[in-house]
Amino acid sequence: MMAVSRETQEPLEDPLAYLPCSTIVEYEKGQLIYGRSQLSGSIYLVIDGKVKVCRTADDGRQVVVDIYQPDEFFGESGFLGEQYRVEEATALDSTKVMTWSTAEIEDLVVRRPRLGVALVQLLVRRSMDFGARIESFSIDGIGRRLVRSLIRFSERLGRESVDGYTDMMPFTHELLSQYVGTSREIVTHYMNKLRREGYLRYSRKGIALNREALREWLRRDSSVGEQD
Amino acid sequence: MMAVSRETQEPLEDPLAYLPCSTIVEYEKGQLIYGRSQLSGSIYLVIDGKVKVCRTADDGRQVVVDIYQPDEFFGESGFLGEQYRVEEATALDSTKVMTWSTAEIEDLVVRRPRLGVALVQLLVRRSMDFGARIESFSIDGIGRRLVRSLIRFSERLGRESVDGYTDMMPFTHELLSQYVGTSREIVTHYMNKLRREGYLRYSRKGIALNREALREWLRRDSSVGEQD
Repeated sequence: MMAVSRETQEPLEDPLAYLPCSTIVEYEKGQLIYGRSQLSGSIYLVIDGKVKVCRTADDGRQVVVDIYQPDEFFGESGFLGEQYRVEEATALDSTKVMTWSTAEIEDLVVRRPRLGVALVQLLVRRSMDFGARIESFSIDGIGRRLVRSLIRFSERLGRESVDGYTDMMPFTHELLSQYVGTSREIVTHYMNKLRREGYLRYSRKGIALNREALREWLRRDSSVGEQD
Repeated sequence: MMAVSRETQEPLEDPLAYLPCSTIVEYEKGQLIYGRSQLSGSIYLVIDGKVKVCRTADDGRQVVVDIYQPDEFFGESGFLGEQYRVEEATALDSTKVMTWSTAEIEDLVVRRPRLGVALVQLLVRRSMDFGARIESFSIDGIGRRLVRSLIRFSERLGRESVDGYTDMMPFTHELLSQYVGTSREIVTHYMNKLRREGYLRYSRKGIALNREALREWLRRDSSVGEQD
């Protein structure tokens, strides 16, 4: 579903319409794309594969900022021109990314200002998404946070299946725990519970989930799944 | 401290340098600036006073997204051109704001593309800030979350005092609880504890805190303040 503007029903701008091709770099599954000690001068577009962007706490614990798929940008912290990144990006599959220096992008914005509008809209959407996640952290227990995260990932990264389920990549429980902000064991507990109750199943491709049933679960009882 | 870009040490762009004056609207303390049922077509700049932007959960609980002061923008969700806002904005003091329609801003970006670069940098900085908050929600207990929030507010909204303390507005415990994601009672418990231990005090103007001592507290023991 594409958001449309109020008065003219124009679709939002697409940054890809304004960007020239650039060099493509390939990464193997698990390979670091940029680390925290790296200079922070580029932004990236996923061409193929998937990328995980994490923050690492002082004690080494990882927090997943998000997962990016083809046609999505990451590394936007490059725009701040700071010496180092606070995040790191890793290829989740074998992955191809296209890279531009932020100086190049800024020059392009000056020459093609609709690219600026497109980037502003993209970043506002990302901010709103972080806002929703902060709301969930503030008011939801872990069960609800996990269910909201699964619904969100299925909307962003999933593919509809024939029987009403949505097929998603094989998220590990560790990765989910780093997104939801809990331990792997607690994620496993809830994932087993959701599987027993028919909300999700493990398919050949990964995880399949019944998004509508999970939405109904969220509506039905705001305390379900928190106490057990 | 102004962030500087790596190669040229240029300061980041300032959107205010590219925006023409617009109409100013005044709000009384506590007055709603925009609500969730309102059409979402403007962005706002604080001229005087302070503004609280909140999200409201389905059960009515409020989550504070942030507090904005003079020369800061809010309402950027207007750029998505959606029918309604998911947030609401309220004047915390008697407040003046300047407003532009997002269509106006987009036209300005096309005519003055450096405004686009400035808005991109501002939004990336905001995203990084949300990322840090999500990290804190993921790994910190409530005591550390509160201390990090107090340090952040003092950096953003505080004024250095003569004795090493930073004076801040009179945050209510309720507002802090809506930012940290806990109950007012728990915030009161920790604020009393921090006050007894000399990390903060209540001044005529509001709250004064010893930011360096609180930073040291964060470094010293990652578990302090969580168990009691």
